[in-house]
Amino acid sequence: MPATRPADARTFVKPDAAAALRNAPVFRTADEAVIAKLLERCQTLSCPKGHVLFMQGDLAEWFYIIDSGWVKLFRETLDGDEVVMDVMPRGHIFGETAAFEDGTYSCSAEIVEPAVLLAYPLSVLDLAVRNNGALALAMLRHVSGRSLMQGKEIEHRTAQNAPQRLGCYLLRLCDPEKTGPAVIHLPHDKVMIAARLGMQPETFSRALARLQKDVGLRVRGATVEIGDIGLLTSYTCSACSNAFPCEK
Amino acid sequence: MPATRPADARTFVKPDAAAALRNAPVFRTADEAVIAKLLERCQTLSCPKGHVLFMQGDLAEWFYIIDSGWVKLFRETLDGDEVVMDVMPRGHIFGETAAFEDGTYSCSAEIVEPAVLLAYPLSVLDLAVRNNGALALAMLRHVSGRSLMQGKEIEHRTAQNAPQRLGCYLLRLCDPEKTGPAVIHLPHDKVMIAARLGMQPETFSRALARLQKDVGLRVRGATVEIGDIGLLTSYTCSACSNAFPCEK
Repeated sequence: MPATRPADARTFVKPDAAAALRNAPVFRTADEAVIAKLLERCQTLSCPKGHVLFMQGDLAEWFYIIDSGWVKLFRETLDGDEVVMDVMPRGHIFGETAAFEDGTYSCSAEIVEPAVLLAYPLSVLDLAVRNNGALALAMLRHVSGRSLMQGKEIEHRTAQNAPQRLGCYLLRLCDPEKTGPAVIHLPHDKVMIAARLGMQPETFSRALARLQKDVGLRVRGATVEIGDIGLLTSYTCSACSNAFPCEK
Repeated sequence: MPATRPADARTFVKPDAAAALRNAPVFRTADEAVIAKLLERCQTLSCPKGHVLFMQGDLAEWFYIIDSGWVKLFRETLDGDEVVMDVMPRGHIFGETAAFEDGTYSCSAEIVEPAVLLAYPLSVLDLAVRNNGALALAMLRHVSGRSLMQGKEIEHRTAQNAPQRLGCYLLRLCDPEKTGPAVIHLPHDKVMIAARLGMQPETFSRALARLQKDVGLRVRGATVEIGDIGLLTSYTCSACSNAFPCEK
């Protein structure tokens, strides 16, 4: 059982742990035997908001798939400042690369919206990857894809100003096929979005005001009206090496 | 022959292409047959400063090991701003992950100090990784390690201010065993270091002045005297989740 299993686990509909694995691209074509081994010791966790699942540097024993809720990955500086690395919804997998790094988690993980998680044993995954070339290759593609996204994140945090970073975030919530006006709903409160974008809340507020002025964005609570996706794209993507619609 | 082979290749001592491969951790324990296949089509390139080896989005056909000189990896925004992702010396390998991504280079590469490079065919590497579980595992560890470094870079570009980022760069040039005062030599001119750290040159100058004032740094040309590594560490690493000496 994961050491981090919260004490106040509640009653819920048990998620399908096999389907969750198969839905993750890295396990889509994995051998049945590998899936069965992972399922043998799989645990379902129900976690309240604010629960810290693990801390950066903890010995990594489990990897997780989110069945519902949201999970934040973050690091904490020695001064106590928090750097948010990602905020992830249903279907996302995390902690799975620790076995190929130094055996510890490279980030801390905290539940930001009440979540049901599936926990699978990392030692089983590690052994399976060592003994199964196809799985090693799938994992290599998976980690390479993540590394590509990190490269993009470094680029954004360097080249885009705050309104552009926020514009980019909003564009990613849009249907990539869409042009003209669009209405989207923010998946988190603004403090969380600011943190995800590496901004202070006051920087976020100024960025939002800037977008309202420059590209006619309208915000009512969690609803955002984009006047013209094309206009927001030229505003945002000029400071990026890709243009919308880009790979997510 | 790499399409990007510069026309003005000069005479030089041919580097040991097999030793260069074996020195890269990812190939340290690779089968002789894999090494032999890579060597069959290996090319040696002598590249002048300023030569662009490939552009982001180019079809990736070769990966490279630096025998001498320095190579800059960068991206260019649609507005024409450059984001430097890395500046690498002898022994570094680059372009090798393109085969496991989408088959194109995710960055552009430019020679920043006259360089001798070894170019190996990516198609051979791709095939070898597909057919050889041990090599796939070595490549997985390699890409995971790179992803860890990128995570650290995202953290730094978010949490550290400019003097701290510069302090961190200087600490990485120090002997990790050392305490007290230290003298180091900058491997590049200041414009390049500023770019590597994601700063404008004027931000870099202000950061340097700040370090001179706050931690007694002394700079004469490319020589930097650090009064006390401990003092620079507490100044710099307070805004990081690791403290010096950290993994490079």
